[in-house]
Amino acid sequence: MRGFFWSLAVAALAACPVAAQTREPLALRDFGSFHVGGRLADVSGPVRKVPLGDGKTQEVDPNGVFLVEDMYVQYFLPQNRRGKFPMLMWHGGGLTGVTYETTPDGRPGWLDMFARKGWDVYVSDAVERGRAGFAPPEVFKGEPVFAPLGFAWEQYRIGAPGSFNNAPEKRVAYPGGQFPVAGYDNLVRQMVPRWLTTDDAILTAYIAEVDRVCPCVLLVHSQSGTIAYRAALARPDKIKAIVDIEGTLRGDEKTAAAVKHIPILALYGDNIDKSEFFSTQHVANVKMAAIAKSVGGDVEIVNLPERGVKGNSHFMMMERNNAEIADIVEKWLEDKSLVETGK
Amino acid sequence: MRGFFWSLAVAALAACPVAAQTREPLALRDFGSFHVGGRLADVSGPVRKVPLGDGKTQEVDPNGVFLVEDMYVQYFLPQNRRGKFPMLMWHGGGLTGVTYETTPDGRPGWLDMFARKGWDVYVSDAVERGRAGFAPPEVFKGEPVFAPLGFAWEQYRIGAPGSFNNAPEKRVAYPGGQFPVAGYDNLVRQMVPRWLTTDDAILTAYIAEVDRVCPCVLLVHSQSGTIAYRAALARPDKIKAIVDIEGTLRGDEKTAAAVKHIPILALYGDNIDKSEFFSTQHVANVKMAAIAKSVGGDVEIVNLPERGVKGNSHFMMMERNNAEIADIVEKWLEDKSLVETGK
Repeated sequence: MRGFFWSLAVAALAACPVAAQTREPLALRDFGSFHVGGRLADVSGPVRKVPLGDGKTQEVDPNGVFLVEDMYVQYFLPQNRRGKFPMLMWHGGGLTGVTYETTPDGRPGWLDMFARKGWDVYVSDAVERGRAGFAPPEVFKGEPVFAPLGFAWEQYRIGAPGSFNNAPEKRVAYPGGQFPVAGYDNLVRQMVPRWLTTDDAILTAYIAEVDRVCPCVLLVHSQSGTIAYRAALARPDKIKAIVDIEGTLRGDEKTAAAVKHIPILALYGDNIDKSEFFSTQHVANVKMAAIAKSVGGDVEIVNLPERGVKGNSHFMMMERNNAEIADIVEKWLEDKSLVETGK
Repeated sequence: MRGFFWSLAVAALAACPVAAQTREPLALRDFGSFHVGGRLADVSGPVRKVPLGDGKTQEVDPNGVFLVEDMYVQYFLPQNRRGKFPMLMWHGGGLTGVTYETTPDGRPGWLDMFARKGWDVYVSDAVERGRAGFAPPEVFKGEPVFAPLGFAWEQYRIGAPGSFNNAPEKRVAYPGGQFPVAGYDNLVRQMVPRWLTTDDAILTAYIAEVDRVCPCVLLVHSQSGTIAYRAALARPDKIKAIVDIEGTLRGDEKTAAAVKHIPILALYGDNIDKSEFFSTQHVANVKMAAIAKSVGGDVEIVNLPERGVKGNSHFMMMERNNAEIADIVEKWLEDKSLVETGK
């Protein structure tokens, strides 16, 4: 009989989100979501026969006015606010705001951690991604690109080129890696298709978010590094700092002075030298930091392994030591006087 | 000088989410998200040249193994729990979980309301929608269908057929309607493309969610009515009740007995008789209620206007009186002994 109840208890735990039993409650003074931005587009084209899957088709008339290129934002406002400004979390290419919500092994992500640190957190899905939806082919022109199962493993430095295998037991990660490899497929589940033609529309919607929510701090990843820099150039008075997780800034001599008052922290994980893609990006950001310094700006490059924080991939916000890296970010924000002290 | 500060205060308020200043804090014992379900698919096809938007193209190799047809779930677990089981909120066709998060005029949605009533709320994006992502064309077969600006207005009974106009000031809603028409475009922003070939994949992923989270109560809308009924047939021991907001159940004599222990509440808004689509669906559900009764089941159809609740469209969870309708749902759940009393 004891064994019977024990089995039931195990089954109940398995159904619960990880760690649901052990965490401190979080008091939110508000939470919710909204869509922002977008434009009306006149679409015209021939009536199409769309397959229904049973051999039959349905006629679809694509002609009309469509509301396109808006984006989605969800916010969590903690009762005990310490961050002086809202923190906007922007995801990378082929991803959505889920990047910041959870980890492949089911632990809390940075949304949770920074809300508990006292930041008003705004997590978004960019144009074309997730809950933003995507526009008809007549508007986006190109087509969505899909990442196969192993793409993120090799491209984003979980393991070396050639180390991925579709069979989980045959995948070889970098030694000492922080990525929770047993949950790798959960990272793949987070990934969504992306277009290659939508950068300007993505930026326009982000600026609409900035106009609604900011002044603010931007915390950005990968593809969003460039977008954050462009948004800062468009709204230099609204952006109080940028934390750039392995994203290229793409600034240059012409633009550096216009954003020199905005402190930027660029974080890099491990094994950068084993990836041509990230080596090139890293060189560009080091160069950008020097340009910024020459005009009185403040771009700090932190290579985590040099601080003894080793084994991180491109997805440091969801790896085993994500709390440690969140603390590094928080300390930098405190140093920049963006956190209320004495609270 | 007084005017100067007053202007600043107004600007700050405009940047805040609606009602952020006036609400009671909500204590969550946990919140987070996960993806669930999915399968591996071998995809093969010719290498494609994908446009980059600048006249150039990039070669994309579609061959490989892809993880497809998983879905996204976000959960909010209140500190003061009263609901005896988790409540899973499933959205309708062409929509995502945002259906339950907010309203077109920026007020709290049912996610917020039911969490505050003490329910563990799980809001999801079905296969193909929102943060679930979508699969390559070799997997989904069909193609996404897009809704023009006016589709929801006429199809979902905000106004009569022919009453929509692309110019907001020329739109004519039903008299006494509850939909916040000034925010209509925000409903359109919530809408996302849908396929016509994915019902079975959607159901399979929902069952994976049920297996992870339930026993539970389902609160479903529109397209999800049918899916909820099929999920109940697949997992009759896991579903404790279904609240069906204008969704067809599509049950029949053969299946009614298998789910007769599951109480079902089907809610309908106003002006059903002015829509052939909803009249037909309503007739089917009334018939289903009679079949259920004949085998000892419990399907209750509530036509809100007959209770004096008038003017609701298909989107009653986001209309002006959404709190009143949430209370009707809560009362029914209490009557079915699904709410802890004395708390």
